[in-house]
Amino acid sequence: MIIDFEVMQILQNAVIIVSGGSGSRMQSEVPKQYMDVNGKAILVWTVEKFLAFDPQIFIVLVLADGHQDFWNPIKNRFFREREFIMARGGESRFDSVKSGLEMIKDDCIVGIHDAVRPMVSIETIKRCYDSAREFGSAIPVIDVEDTIRSVGAQNSNQVNRENLKRVQTPQVFAAHQIKEAYRQSYTIEFTDDATVYERKFNSVKLVEGNPENIKITKPVDLKILSILLS
Amino acid sequence: MIIDFEVMQILQNAVIIVSGGSGSRMQSEVPKQYMDVNGKAILVWTVEKFLAFDPQIFIVLVLADGHQDFWNPIKNRFFREREFIMARGGESRFDSVKSGLEMIKDDCIVGIHDAVRPMVSIETIKRCYDSAREFGSAIPVIDVEDTIRSVGAQNSNQVNRENLKRVQTPQVFAAHQIKEAYRQSYTIEFTDDATVYERKFNSVKLVEGNPENIKITKPVDLKILSILLS
Repeated sequence: MIIDFEVMQILQNAVIIVSGGSGSRMQSEVPKQYMDVNGKAILVWTVEKFLAFDPQIFIVLVLADGHQDFWNPIKNRFFREREFIMARGGESRFDSVKSGLEMIKDDCIVGIHDAVRPMVSIETIKRCYDSAREFGSAIPVIDVEDTIRSVGAQNSNQVNRENLKRVQTPQVFAAHQIKEAYRQSYTIEFTDDATVYERKFNSVKLVEGNPENIKITKPVDLKILSILLS
Repeated sequence: MIIDFEVMQILQNAVIIVSGGSGSRMQSEVPKQYMDVNGKAILVWTVEKFLAFDPQIFIVLVLADGHQDFWNPIKNRFFREREFIMARGGESRFDSVKSGLEMIKDDCIVGIHDAVRPMVSIETIKRCYDSAREFGSAIPVIDVEDTIRSVGAQNSNQVNRENLKRVQTPQVFAAHQIKEAYRQSYTIEFTDDATVYERKFNSVKLVEGNPENIKITKPVDLKILSILLS
């Protein structure tokens, strides 16, 4: 399937929000994406960012088995009038994304975003979708601030951090391409969507992310998020 | 100068606390190391960690020109009975450390620590000094949690983050060795003390750091520090 540039301009935006994690690192019964921070579940903050970017965006929510009970009250309270397409999370992130992509039409621009990254900026989202519309792919990256060493069996060496970037989400693609890429068999190198995509299409486009776009994984991250939101 | 293993065991601990920064990233008149967080200046929290590790530790404080006015009231309030050796900060971090090393005797174990890393754990400090006593050097490192890409002129590639480590301070050394290393002429690759040391002595020993040991550089870091301290 070939989609030319002019068609790309009018393709609808879609996003797959991957919310499959069980939150084992949080020492909590409630998975982290459903935890309340400053009055709303983290997942609500995340969804609102994409709605602010494009109120018409097509949203697929990939939920882990049994998480419907966490989601339903959120849906009723914050998004009563809104349609969400639900997909079922798999064993791995790869399986969960694949499950979400089954709900996506070929002729759209689709982002894949971690439910636990509520601090993505609307500007970052826009840069990613604009760039994916033009180039077929876009992932947000930021500078590495720490001094970094590469560790080998015998020794370690300082790495020039100016050549390194930290990768965030949303990772955004021409839907027909990322769907094709996800038909490949899983390999251990597939650590994010960009690695799946570039195995098939050779490269991904990098765009500027925003440093606040942290992934909420540890208890202290909840407190940091609370500060960033206020 | 050769110092054998048995002598190493009884060498005194020393630390150079490098407090030369002018805090231009903080949008503030007060340099960040003197800012109050939870009732004490950041520099006080930092110094207290080293005193908790070893009450007898020899402390050299490298201050930027004009910062004596920030330091004097801190000294009077928190460390009235304590001796600090003062050294004058230079143009660059390399110059500042060199200035501090002039105050250090050859026969001790010396750590070099950023004043704005108050969350170093006492366990991290102990691991570094124990290891430097045994091997001549030790720097604390922690895992990289983000997905990392290496960016080239034409393309970018995912890097296996299991081979990467984030480097912290204190970086700790046999004093006679690090002093000898700092007699080398400055080159742009000297981004921390470990790179200066290993240019002369080939390698540095890595030990486990602690993730909370963040470097306070941006306004939001002050709020994160406040959470970590409480």
